[in-house]
Amino acid sequence: MESSQPVSYNSDTIAAVATPPGMGAIAIVRISGKNSLETALKCFKPKSSEISQNTIQSHHLYFGEVYSEGKVLDEVLLTYFKAPHSYTGEDAVEISCHGSEYVQQALLQTILDVGARMASPGEFTLRAFLNGKMDLAQAEAVADLIASESKAAHRMAINQMRGGFSEKISELREKLVNFASLLELELDFSEEDVEFANREQFILLLNEIKKELVGLKESFVMGNVLKKGIPVAIIGKPNVGKSTLLNAILNEEKAIVSEIPGTTRDAIEDTITLEGYSFRFVDTAGLRDSTDIVENMGIEKTYDKIEQARLILYVCDISSMNKTSMAELLNDYKSYINNKNKHFILVANKIDQMEEVPGHLKELLDLETVFVSAKRKENIHLLAETLVNHVKNDSPGDDVLVNNSRHYEALRNALDSINVVEQGFENNIPTDLVAIDVRQALYYLGSITGEVTSDEILGNIFGKFCIGK
Amino acid sequence: MESSQPVSYNSDTIAAVATPPGMGAIAIVRISGKNSLETALKCFKPKSSEISQNTIQSHHLYFGEVYSEGKVLDEVLLTYFKAPHSYTGEDAVEISCHGSEYVQQALLQTILDVGARMASPGEFTLRAFLNGKMDLAQAEAVADLIASESKAAHRMAINQMRGGFSEKISELREKLVNFASLLELELDFSEEDVEFANREQFILLLNEIKKELVGLKESFVMGNVLKKGIPVAIIGKPNVGKSTLLNAILNEEKAIVSEIPGTTRDAIEDTITLEGYSFRFVDTAGLRDSTDIVENMGIEKTYDKIEQARLILYVCDISSMNKTSMAELLNDYKSYINNKNKHFILVANKIDQMEEVPGHLKELLDLETVFVSAKRKENIHLLAETLVNHVKNDSPGDDVLVNNSRHYEALRNALDSINVVEQGFENNIPTDLVAIDVRQALYYLGSITGEVTSDEILGNIFGKFCIGK
Repeated sequence: MESSQPVSYNSDTIAAVATPPGMGAIAIVRISGKNSLETALKCFKPKSSEISQNTIQSHHLYFGEVYSEGKVLDEVLLTYFKAPHSYTGEDAVEISCHGSEYVQQALLQTILDVGARMASPGEFTLRAFLNGKMDLAQAEAVADLIASESKAAHRMAINQMRGGFSEKISELREKLVNFASLLELELDFSEEDVEFANREQFILLLNEIKKELVGLKESFVMGNVLKKGIPVAIIGKPNVGKSTLLNAILNEEKAIVSEIPGTTRDAIEDTITLEGYSFRFVDTAGLRDSTDIVENMGIEKTYDKIEQARLILYVCDISSMNKTSMAELLNDYKSYINNKNKHFILVANKIDQMEEVPGHLKELLDLETVFVSAKRKENIHLLAETLVNHVKNDSPGDDVLVNNSRHYEALRNALDSINVVEQGFENNIPTDLVAIDVRQALYYLGSITGEVTSDEILGNIFGKFCIGK
Repeated sequence: MESSQPVSYNSDTIAAVATPPGMGAIAIVRISGKNSLETALKCFKPKSSEISQNTIQSHHLYFGEVYSEGKVLDEVLLTYFKAPHSYTGEDAVEISCHGSEYVQQALLQTILDVGARMASPGEFTLRAFLNGKMDLAQAEAVADLIASESKAAHRMAINQMRGGFSEKISELREKLVNFASLLELELDFSEEDVEFANREQFILLLNEIKKELVGLKESFVMGNVLKKGIPVAIIGKPNVGKSTLLNAILNEEKAIVSEIPGTTRDAIEDTITLEGYSFRFVDTAGLRDSTDIVENMGIEKTYDKIEQARLILYVCDISSMNKTSMAELLNDYKSYINNKNKHFILVANKIDQMEEVPGHLKELLDLETVFVSAKRKENIHLLAETLVNHVKNDSPGDDVLVNNSRHYEALRNALDSINVVEQGFENNIPTDLVAIDVRQALYYLGSITGEVTSDEILGNIFGKFCIGK
């Protein structure tokens, strides 16, 4: 990944390696621009002499050789994508070569030598957007799709790429446009004292739009969490077995996701994937022993971590609990359960050190408690299930979730404008002034799908893509 | 890269990710086996409803969706390769998906779920060999091609993959077969006392074959060196500037290869690529100051390193040389120049500390001496040129070079057999006994291209391939 500003659209020929960096059986160099085929044929020689630029068909593979400095560089397959039936919407060519790092780079260099230019990050997708092959939200989803590391993140990205989110925004815009038309109509005839729709009706319409905007905006919390991994804080007093529990969960994870090699566990030490959801464990070892948890939350850093968490695992040593510590625990519990954005799960650890749950702890059974032995790895799967179930319950199925902070900002701004419109109605502000804020809301919604945009916004978005996409 | 034994050939459906591991714009999952298309179509749904298993054409791309658990996993391009027009010679399918690690693995898993089996390392190429799409030496060149990191290594691999080496072996075998026929003929009529070819003629023929075998065998030194990097030992007394010189060369290299990003400099610290040749610098810092270089060579370890080197850079501090040290140096020089497998280059360093070469050093000008200032990076390009020129002069252009130790062993064995044949003639051994050794030589040559082979040999060769090739 590199950052650079893509330039405004022109159809010069760009090229880049499109497959992941490194060595593999096959690699692909991608070319796009109106002279793609002509450029490729300057170094590609088909095996069959009957094939020429004029006879090459779109979406067909041709076997041949790439020449560099008069010698065969590689035996390759060439595919031509005739505009507009390509990813970018332009004429495009893909050359599939042997996946040696040397061959990949030499092939790219050869193509650059015969007239192509190295593509900027995301430039292929930028062209796809500029050619109307996809809107801006869909283009952003392409980057999310490529970066997705869990099933949940992948599902959001693929839905968004396939236009689910864009459709929702489009529906909202349509409603707002209708609303604006009604307003304009009222404005046109305002001097004639005709009231086409009374303000109560306007307010009803507005509330409907507002409700949807609020819903979308609020979905960002979950969307962002699913995309980046659900933050889970493991808290509790020292020596209750927090680290052992974390290790036990991580081991469990290895088994669960063993069919998907290469997950990112090594990169972010404490991120694991359970049933397609990525969980990001947050260390809160800073809790002091001598004071209660609420007091500990006063310690700024730990508080922040707990604040960021969506799920809190409160670990206790069940084998050493008495009535006092039990009361304290229940008190903590109550302080948490009313926070609608968090789930508080009690992890009663060290069940291996007791035979049954004593009477004074029975109350725990009414709470959401998982009894485990972290040391012996007993019931860790129940804890994993509990974590997953909470996320499943929070996830609105296939509903659209906002997971991009740019979209979130735009929705927030649109909602602010709608709130101003609402206040305008309440305060009997003249219709023409109200209409300005409606247009402002439309502008913000339009910025999500790219109906309104700027080179700077495009530069920011596509500069974060990888080269070759 | 993983190691495992490919099983003997059957045409069950195998699948693997073929592009390099990691994240990129595009990744490819490859499927091969007689049910490839049927298997792929269990999870792939073409966008156009008119396309079905019966109407899908070979070498044509189809846009569609892959479904997993009833949901769209990705939008992909599918290509069908109808047997025998595929890499493996079997029916094959390639699915090009978005290059997210999650998508790649999920797509592969989906294909495995609908009936394919995970391919062993090199199993696609093994099938290509077993189906007669390439011989064994060509198959081995595929692995070399993928692993090639320098232009020289790449050139050898591509020539071998395209059959250059196999052709040479085939010519040699043909000559040997002719030779064997003549022998058999003599054998058939031996009781009739007819001499079809006299033994001198046989010896002439044999010498011709032998000469070619020796040439090929000896080319292994250069072939291996070009494949793995040319070992260069930088030697010399302490404080003459060896490390500074190495740093200067490495910097120079950065500039020279800047158009090819991602070379392996970081992996093997002191390997650099100059004009397409990979040089592997060997550290010989162990030379002691107080003794002369020949004595130092007695130190086993340093001696080994110098022994392995093909090029020796003997660095001296030219600014502090007197007649004695000059005489010593010339003495060292003479001990090296007669070694035909090595080149000895004098590097007269620290020219920045003197105005001109004094009279008593003029003799250096007759030797192969490069005058440099490592500190100021002066004339480092001349040194680089000298290194490259030596390799160029050693390289027999586009001639076939043996670069595989299995081939080298086979050639050595074939040559041994031919030597036995020759001795047989000299000692008037009966023709039928001589013929056995001729057949033995044929066997060894045949093992190179795989005319004769075994599951064990195939397992060894293809087990070293990457999965997906």
